[in-house]
Amino acid sequence: MSQSWTGQIVASVNEHLRTLFETKRAQVTEMSPYAAELLDAAAELTMRGGKRLRCLILYAGYRASGGPADTARILELSAAIELLQTYLLIQDDWMDDDAERRGGPSVHAALAQKRNDAKLGASLAILASDLAAGFAHEALQRGAVASKRTSEILARFSQMHTEVVCGQQMDLLEHTDVERMHDLKTGSYTVRGPLQIGALLADATPEQLAALDRFGRPLGIAFQLRDDLLGTYGDPAVTGKPAGHDLREGKNTSLIREARALLDGQAWSQLASVLGNANATAPQLSEAARVLETSGARARVEAHLATLANEAESALVAAPLGAEGVAMLRELLNKLVLRDR
Amino acid sequence: MSQSWTGQIVASVNEHLRTLFETKRAQVTEMSPYAAELLDAAAELTMRGGKRLRCLILYAGYRASGGPADTARILELSAAIELLQTYLLIQDDWMDDDAERRGGPSVHAALAQKRNDAKLGASLAILASDLAAGFAHEALQRGAVASKRTSEILARFSQMHTEVVCGQQMDLLEHTDVERMHDLKTGSYTVRGPLQIGALLADATPEQLAALDRFGRPLGIAFQLRDDLLGTYGDPAVTGKPAGHDLREGKNTSLIREARALLDGQAWSQLASVLGNANATAPQLSEAARVLETSGARARVEAHLATLANEAESALVAAPLGAEGVAMLRELLNKLVLRDR
Repeated sequence: MSQSWTGQIVASVNEHLRTLFETKRAQVTEMSPYAAELLDAAAELTMRGGKRLRCLILYAGYRASGGPADTARILELSAAIELLQTYLLIQDDWMDDDAERRGGPSVHAALAQKRNDAKLGASLAILASDLAAGFAHEALQRGAVASKRTSEILARFSQMHTEVVCGQQMDLLEHTDVERMHDLKTGSYTVRGPLQIGALLADATPEQLAALDRFGRPLGIAFQLRDDLLGTYGDPAVTGKPAGHDLREGKNTSLIREARALLDGQAWSQLASVLGNANATAPQLSEAARVLETSGARARVEAHLATLANEAESALVAAPLGAEGVAMLRELLNKLVLRDR
Repeated sequence: MSQSWTGQIVASVNEHLRTLFETKRAQVTEMSPYAAELLDAAAELTMRGGKRLRCLILYAGYRASGGPADTARILELSAAIELLQTYLLIQDDWMDDDAERRGGPSVHAALAQKRNDAKLGASLAILASDLAAGFAHEALQRGAVASKRTSEILARFSQMHTEVVCGQQMDLLEHTDVERMHDLKTGSYTVRGPLQIGALLADATPEQLAALDRFGRPLGIAFQLRDDLLGTYGDPAVTGKPAGHDLREGKNTSLIREARALLDGQAWSQLASVLGNANATAPQLSEAARVLETSGARARVEAHLATLANEAESALVAAPLGAEGVAMLRELLNKLVLRDR
């Protein structure tokens, strides 16, 4: 079953996005002879990735709420979420000074190199993100207007957007509430939002929406914990991110939060000297990863992840949702929690 | 008449925006204890300005297309355009390294100072712009869903957004087509877009939409020419921008384009040495402004502006538009072309 529905959605979303970018390319090129540069930057990043996890979640939410089996129904709303993701990734990479994304150069890095001007590259990258956000809204509007729950879908998308922006802000600032940050920055538009939007498209009942939220909230945080584990212990060849990436960046991840509670003053100071140090050597980074392991931080994060996954799983038991959709949700829960990239 | 309708719209739009920001403030503060910083930055910039020209144009387009006298009808769509403006100004100021806007600090400058970190200030400013853009879409959706022409209003807003982004990109790059840049960057969301959106709200006929576009296109460019003249010859106390602002920034304005055609090689080189020179002295800037005047560049821009204003004026003659709306459009044409700030 897995290959069929997930593979089919990935293929049709990709096809839909390709057509959308072609149409927009013709349109913006007519507006300005320069605009293709922005469009191509957004299109290239969008098409380079391609797990389309958020579209799978949207479809599962739609099917679980009684939507008939028809993947074409979700294409516009799926495109909206993928384009929102493109906009967020472009900005996120610039804010974090990340030069790589999805196994290639980040948008601001590519444009800065092309223009031989870091500030101009950053400005053009922000404009490419703006363009992607605009396209996201266009796709959203087409998808929402064609549904019975237009206003609610539009409002849910807006809420998701506001949450991500607030989550990204938290991530940039000193903060202690890592779980809330993850819920806002990642859970919102990766899991909770797509689930609810898919459900609204299927004209879900309030009980169905509530059940999906009980499932999505722990899953969204679990997804981010897996991301944190991959950011330190993942295989660079599979994740597309360099080894020790999160440590070198000094990201305030769940691993770091646990280590801070577990390590004594001296051990913590030693670890902290590597965190966010752009000049940290490979041996220093792998020693830091080892300390996170021996301190028990990694095990705590793994345990917390398992608890959240169980919580999500339990939310599906006796939920007022369709059996086939629930099977899809279970499959995605396993995929998201066990993934290696 | 002037004071009554324009004053009334400015007051009700301001009141509407104030309420909107209060509502959103409560909402985002519940999401994250840090979010008020972003919201307040966007709100402060929005409320600090206040000509609300775009709202007046939207209302005139609405009335000219037969919409009944009722300023409350345009509030959501007006808020959408003002919030779009906030988002654009925040990004524009960061891209241009402008430290001032509307007689106060620009958002990235204020946040950089507060955080004592230029990059963090810039990142937070982009997030504040994202938040404003999201609020713009929410207001747009409420306004559009309550109208007969929902899809067209949403699509017209998206087109306007894409045009501005492409215009801003042109402005950042070396380009020769100053008029197209102005039409995309300024005319689109200052004049053409608001006119059409107001007209759609009044369920305008295709002939009315076409007549308003014939009026709006030259007016949009004329508006920018006036802006260029004010950027060099305006009174800083009135415009809120420092003297010689456009020259110091090296902006590719209509004045510069004319001067390049009029001046001989040596005179042009002398002028060019001041353009974009952040260290240019006040006497150098005022000498450059004088050269733009004696070369005939200023007179050419003034003449072109008058031609465009006549063109806009002529488009109203015998147009299939309501008399009261046409009177408003004439009043705005004068206001925009003769304004001193």
